[in-house]
Amino acid sequence: MQSDLNEAYRGRKILVTGGAGFIGLNLVERLVELGADVTIYDYAMSRSAEVMAEQYRDRLRLCQGDIRDEAKVEEAVRGKDILFNLAGKSGAADSNKSSLIDLDVNCRGHLTLLEACRRINPGAAVVFPSSRLVYGRPRQLPVDEDHPLQPESFYAVHKTTVEHYLQVYARQFDLRSAVLRISNPYGPLQGHDERIYGVANKFVQAAVDNQPIRLFGDGTQKRDYLYIDDLVDALLKSGIKASSPPLVMNIGGREVVSLQQLAELIVRLAGTGSIEHVTWPEEFLSVETGNYYGCLQRAENHLAWQPVTSLEDGLGKTIERYRKA
Amino acid sequence: MQSDLNEAYRGRKILVTGGAGFIGLNLVERLVELGADVTIYDYAMSRSAEVMAEQYRDRLRLCQGDIRDEAKVEEAVRGKDILFNLAGKSGAADSNKSSLIDLDVNCRGHLTLLEACRRINPGAAVVFPSSRLVYGRPRQLPVDEDHPLQPESFYAVHKTTVEHYLQVYARQFDLRSAVLRISNPYGPLQGHDERIYGVANKFVQAAVDNQPIRLFGDGTQKRDYLYIDDLVDALLKSGIKASSPPLVMNIGGREVVSLQQLAELIVRLAGTGSIEHVTWPEEFLSVETGNYYGCLQRAENHLAWQPVTSLEDGLGKTIERYRKA
Repeated sequence: MQSDLNEAYRGRKILVTGGAGFIGLNLVERLVELGADVTIYDYAMSRSAEVMAEQYRDRLRLCQGDIRDEAKVEEAVRGKDILFNLAGKSGAADSNKSSLIDLDVNCRGHLTLLEACRRINPGAAVVFPSSRLVYGRPRQLPVDEDHPLQPESFYAVHKTTVEHYLQVYARQFDLRSAVLRISNPYGPLQGHDERIYGVANKFVQAAVDNQPIRLFGDGTQKRDYLYIDDLVDALLKSGIKASSPPLVMNIGGREVVSLQQLAELIVRLAGTGSIEHVTWPEEFLSVETGNYYGCLQRAENHLAWQPVTSLEDGLGKTIERYRKA
Repeated sequence: MQSDLNEAYRGRKILVTGGAGFIGLNLVERLVELGADVTIYDYAMSRSAEVMAEQYRDRLRLCQGDIRDEAKVEEAVRGKDILFNLAGKSGAADSNKSSLIDLDVNCRGHLTLLEACRRINPGAAVVFPSSRLVYGRPRQLPVDEDHPLQPESFYAVHKTTVEHYLQVYARQFDLRSAVLRISNPYGPLQGHDERIYGVANKFVQAAVDNQPIRLFGDGTQKRDYLYIDDLVDALLKSGIKASSPPLVMNIGGREVVSLQQLAELIVRLAGTGSIEHVTWPEEFLSVETGNYYGCLQRAENHLAWQPVTSLEDGLGKTIERYRKA
């Protein structure tokens, strides 16, 4: 499959919006290694993006701009083969404090890109990182893609809206796309200046700093954790398999563990840090959706993808990189 | 139930956004008759709204403003008991030509109102007119409220998004609301200056003008048609029964007929007009969702509501009013 990816991406023109963030940078690194011609579009460039652009001068361009800027986005979309639309504001709890901003960035932003596609590049394929949060509190486990969508935060509502946009663009304009309902990604950051992303990385940071990992409540809720290399692999394969109607798939990790088990594993692997149980902060309790793990059969069928990194390996590599940073 | 409505609405402070439109004016007329203290909030006042405000000077106020104007909306929401949030841009085909405008008016507008509620009037009840279009092409008939939401136009996507907002506001802030998934409303307009609304009214207008009714394709698709008085009754009852989580209900008409049958009935009742079959215009074909009729059991259970106006009676009254106008 590595050779398939090489063939599929060598010389292809790829846009990665939000490409200077955690998932974006990891994706971009793989893309340039595969020989793609990559443009990062982001409202603020990270130091790591600049370093990477120095390193791959002939294959990586940086374009600074807001995802809501119609003219700039149109320019960025022009002539691209595949668009990874990773731009956006993350965080369910945050979105409940600023719903109008979340709407503007996460809906208007994506719609601006899709309108640009329709106008000047309807043949492009779009890959959209949705979230397991579109399901809300699962009715049964594992959750498959036919589970009803019952988003419980503005963040999740707007992910659902963009999924619906992609359905409409497929039906009305035959746009090809792939929707990845991603669980909890974690892994090494690409540099020193990125903000901490997601619960597993936060725990790693605490352990490496020999600080207590703060667990809300009893930490019994079970989740799966998706190592960044596995996620990048799913993104790359989705770019090739995007279709109309959209290919909608759960993308998650191999193992299902409780937050308590996750924290214990991190402390053991790091050899530093500890676990502290604290009362649920209201803002996080209000977006807590309980146990979750997804059925990954559809991604295996359509992408020949499955997560291959064990939690122990993934966390080990993450800890190592945090230590170096 | 009429006396229940009297009791529920007498002296209550009611906001009707989009109150100068077709549904709005019909609702407002009933509200003032029931003794409510009503404010119409609309971006442009119709002549009919002004006439009505003259007539009910002590019980009806007009407030001109955009639903996206945070300060003005906050002022309008303050102190109200029930908010009928009818403001918005209608038309599925239109929305596909101007998705960003549809997003701005129909999502940001409603979110602006809901944020105002949360901030200064969290005890208010909100009634939201959604649409049968949130279901898309029905998987089976009749459609009940558990049918998956698969919107096929931006208009329908944004109706779905607002429905999800109301779920989030209920969960996060305990806001009470009712969501009415309305089928095809029709009926007399309140005056002379309103634009023609919906397919049944368009057909009536053509027949009254002794013009041909233009049927797209063979006109075999079956629909139910909801007389405005029945819809207003459902809105009024929903205002009383709004709950957290939201009460979500199909609201539709009594009889299911094909468009061909509808047109024939209108021509017969009017004694004028004719039927002409024309090729489907692309913009309408692309948002056509085939046969639809909803299961109305939930509305009957929760509101003790059912549509009581026969299609023949409703169309007869509509034709009569169009003739006078």
